[in-house]
Amino acid sequence: MRATVMYGAGDVRVENVPDPVLQNPTDAIVRVVRSCICGSDLWPYGSMPTGGQGRRMGHEFLGVVEELGADVSGFKAGDLVVAPFVWADNTCDFCRQGLQTSCRHGGQWGLHGVDGGQGEAVRVPQAQGTLVKLPVAEDSALLPSLLTLSDVFCTGHHAAVTAGVNPRTTVTVVGDGAVGLCAVLAAKRLGAERIILMGRHKDRTDLGREFGATDVVAERGEEGIERVRELTGGDGTHTVLECVGTQQAIDMSIGIVRDGGAIGRVGAAQYTQVPMGFDTVMRNITMTGGVAPARAYIEELLPDVLDSLIEPGRVFDRTVGLDEVPDGYRAMADRQALKVLIRP
Amino acid sequence: MRATVMYGAGDVRVENVPDPVLQNPTDAIVRVVRSCICGSDLWPYGSMPTGGQGRRMGHEFLGVVEELGADVSGFKAGDLVVAPFVWADNTCDFCRQGLQTSCRHGGQWGLHGVDGGQGEAVRVPQAQGTLVKLPVAEDSALLPSLLTLSDVFCTGHHAAVTAGVNPRTTVTVVGDGAVGLCAVLAAKRLGAERIILMGRHKDRTDLGREFGATDVVAERGEEGIERVRELTGGDGTHTVLECVGTQQAIDMSIGIVRDGGAIGRVGAAQYTQVPMGFDTVMRNITMTGGVAPARAYIEELLPDVLDSLIEPGRVFDRTVGLDEVPDGYRAMADRQALKVLIRP
Repeated sequence: MRATVMYGAGDVRVENVPDPVLQNPTDAIVRVVRSCICGSDLWPYGSMPTGGQGRRMGHEFLGVVEELGADVSGFKAGDLVVAPFVWADNTCDFCRQGLQTSCRHGGQWGLHGVDGGQGEAVRVPQAQGTLVKLPVAEDSALLPSLLTLSDVFCTGHHAAVTAGVNPRTTVTVVGDGAVGLCAVLAAKRLGAERIILMGRHKDRTDLGREFGATDVVAERGEEGIERVRELTGGDGTHTVLECVGTQQAIDMSIGIVRDGGAIGRVGAAQYTQVPMGFDTVMRNITMTGGVAPARAYIEELLPDVLDSLIEPGRVFDRTVGLDEVPDGYRAMADRQALKVLIRP
Repeated sequence: MRATVMYGAGDVRVENVPDPVLQNPTDAIVRVVRSCICGSDLWPYGSMPTGGQGRRMGHEFLGVVEELGADVSGFKAGDLVVAPFVWADNTCDFCRQGLQTSCRHGGQWGLHGVDGGQGEAVRVPQAQGTLVKLPVAEDSALLPSLLTLSDVFCTGHHAAVTAGVNPRTTVTVVGDGAVGLCAVLAAKRLGAERIILMGRHKDRTDLGREFGATDVVAERGEEGIERVRELTGGDGTHTVLECVGTQQAIDMSIGIVRDGGAIGRVGAAQYTQVPMGFDTVMRNITMTGGVAPARAYIEELLPDVLDSLIEPGRVFDRTVGLDEVPDGYRAMADRQALKVLIRP
């Protein structure tokens, strides 16, 4: 089959790789119907050293079940399914508490002989725990939004849930990438009435306004902090959803959050230190969030997508075929595309 | 009257200062019956530059109301009252959400013309919001435990509450000082069954065991992390209550907490950076806690003290008169005393 392999910064190729086959009775083979490129794929795309073996890419996909291992029940060939961006057995103690990203028998796509999502098919380990059946046809217009349950919308939702967004909390979303926009949508869905979106790309912040942002702040750093404080009577917001992952973004989040408030961070941290010294102790600031256990949220969010109450799939502004995936990476890296959908 | 003034590292004096008088209609004058020395007083005692004006000390006290401003209701002269370690109006939006430490009209003892607690009397600003009446006599044997509601027990409780301690969570308490021991007691009170206390002073950890610690770990740093992990099947504990405030303590807390877990930090942070990079994002670690809004907890905790269900006052292992306060500081700094009670 054809699949995406990254060999170094800026070097993404679509190549022939072995067709996936069942290796364990807990596996399934899924033919990929939709996949996409993640903002987090851009970190290695910008910095991966060359010379290595190549890395299979993609951790967001939905597709059709083709084969099932003997231990997988509840699915049949032909089912349309979505996979969360970390596979998991969904039965261990971590999974039962809703932290499938720390599953005792789980792992990441594209590593250790597991396929990535940016290809024609995937061997899905722990298929029964990992996959969630989608009650729509393969040609449903809902596929883009359903695909966001794999990662990007659940990630925005995780930021909002962990930070404690509710109808009584004001919210700042740091970052107008696809995760940031999904965080706006998630905060709106959880009842927030005041949502400040920090971003400087008008086409993106415009979508953010449609998703529920009430204010847009283009400034960054100290100016950004000052602007959000101005908008909130000097206090900052009860919650901050940090959707970037840079040092500047996390520093700014601490400057923006209200005393007693929480930062739900879901950006893939490029920083190693967080300036949470004496001042943040005196202000009772909470830093929470992390990699989103999407699997924990899919069943809860699915009905709203099926009923078109939310349309997170609007973050996709370009669609490519599998052979055009390298163009898709370039477009996202150059900020010509917000998020690229792949139709293999 | 006599009161404690600090002039520099190691230089604490008990001096004559002006008697407190009502300055605002929201003030009260309280004659101090019991006060104490806080672990946080040891930070300036170890490092305060000399040459300045002197700083009035003490932020924990209980006493008898002597005078009330015209706007203070609900109290009368002769009432025994306890004061939380930050004064507050208890009516602003921060106070109503239980964050009296960020009160819009509150402040700290010993600053800006407000008396400290280590003296004969105190002018209490925002007295109606700040003070809580104690239904016991001035000679009650419960006074030491009641005094801990001013700060140290509420601080341990805050660490436990913010970290989410409950009967299903395992707990590590970092530090065997008075706050750490109170955190053990608070975690036990909240139903925790497994409480690992990290400390190396046997007399203190022995009291910790009486308060509810099930395990004691004397090791620190990487060895300490390894030991706690060994005790928990490699996982660490769901919650960590950080009761020290040093870089080592916060680093260790991150190493000890279980994936998806929370660190409730109440140590006065001597560090400026917290190593919460990519690894802690992948592990979904939450950093929470902060300076304890004792006022929010006093009513809730008071009945358990009055019924002697808990005896946090056991952290006091030395009692001094006002003139011996400098000896009390020395004893605590030299670790000859755990926590020093003052009878002015």
